[in-house]
Amino acid sequence: MKLLEDRIRRDGKIKSGNVLKVDSFLNHQMDVKLFAEIGKEFLRLFGDCGVTKILTIEASGIGIACVTAQYFDCPVIFAKKNKTKNIAGDVYTSKVESYTHGKVYDIIVSKEFLRPEDRVLLIDDFLANGSALMGLIKLVQDAGATLVGAGICVEKAFQPGGQMVRDLGIRVESLARIQSMSEDGHIEFC
Amino acid sequence: MKLLEDRIRRDGKIKSGNVLKVDSFLNHQMDVKLFAEIGKEFLRLFGDCGVTKILTIEASGIGIACVTAQYFDCPVIFAKKNKTKNIAGDVYTSKVESYTHGKVYDIIVSKEFLRPEDRVLLIDDFLANGSALMGLIKLVQDAGATLVGAGICVEKAFQPGGQMVRDLGIRVESLARIQSMSEDGHIEFC
Repeated sequence: MKLLEDRIRRDGKIKSGNVLKVDSFLNHQMDVKLFAEIGKEFLRLFGDCGVTKILTIEASGIGIACVTAQYFDCPVIFAKKNKTKNIAGDVYTSKVESYTHGKVYDIIVSKEFLRPEDRVLLIDDFLANGSALMGLIKLVQDAGATLVGAGICVEKAFQPGGQMVRDLGIRVESLARIQSMSEDGHIEFC
Repeated sequence: MKLLEDRIRRDGKIKSGNVLKVDSFLNHQMDVKLFAEIGKEFLRLFGDCGVTKILTIEASGIGIACVTAQYFDCPVIFAKKNKTKNIAGDVYTSKVESYTHGKVYDIIVSKEFLRPEDRVLLIDDFLANGSALMGLIKLVQDAGATLVGAGICVEKAFQPGGQMVRDLGIRVESLARIQSMSEDGHIEFC
């Protein structure tokens, strides 16, 4: 998606350790006009898949998922990172390793909202090592729901997550796939 | 807002300890069509205030804030609950006490995105003891930005947060204000 690639080139900042900061428009400050274009693109890609639920993970996937869901005319569920008093006992759970935060945490989703008859589209802002996406996939599988695929905004294609998930036979559509990047600001897209 | 009150009566679940679960449509599963109506109502209330940024707090405020921002045609910023490697050092910070999770945590927002010239609308799903809202207010004040007011979906008017914030001279608009509720399922709105 050229619009997103151009925006990453213009406003993305490359930091040491292969960190790409897109927090001026994607995951801290959020450009909802860009999200609308992203949502339309996901609709173009997955619009004929009979999606009944969009599943994402807190926190930065939620905004993109909600704007996208308006085009799919379906609800969003976000997997929560901690078990709180406000979620009843009946949850699906999986483990996610955060490379950004350097820890492993549980994600949960209430069984009430993820049903065997659901056709689920996963949405997230980033795909790098694939841990969050694998965690979401397990939730869908545990629910016995149908996984339609995953819509990702930015994939770091030089990290193993995308290949790992595609090797499972799961459709992954990434709107911007980064082949390489360097701290002098150069970004190569696939 | 009658639509939201009706939805709370229909799908809200009252648990012990004055917990109102609205996780089937507001803060776990999210009904984005309802969010659109909420966004239009916030526009009706704050549309003439020259809002340049919507500020919310992760996680459950993000979806409502993003859908609302589409009507205001402005970006969203969400205050993050933990300092991650991906946020640079220059942040405004304040403390928030979570009654749901039973702990105090820091919230941060990058100084880059909250500027003295901004006119900020706060958006959140719940207002009860007011700790999250007070934390957001401090971020706006620290930035020297103008606080236009706060748009809240559900206010527990029998808890002190709403009064506390209004006593500071801050405009708070809550779309559903709960006067009382009881575990037999009865809810009284203000």
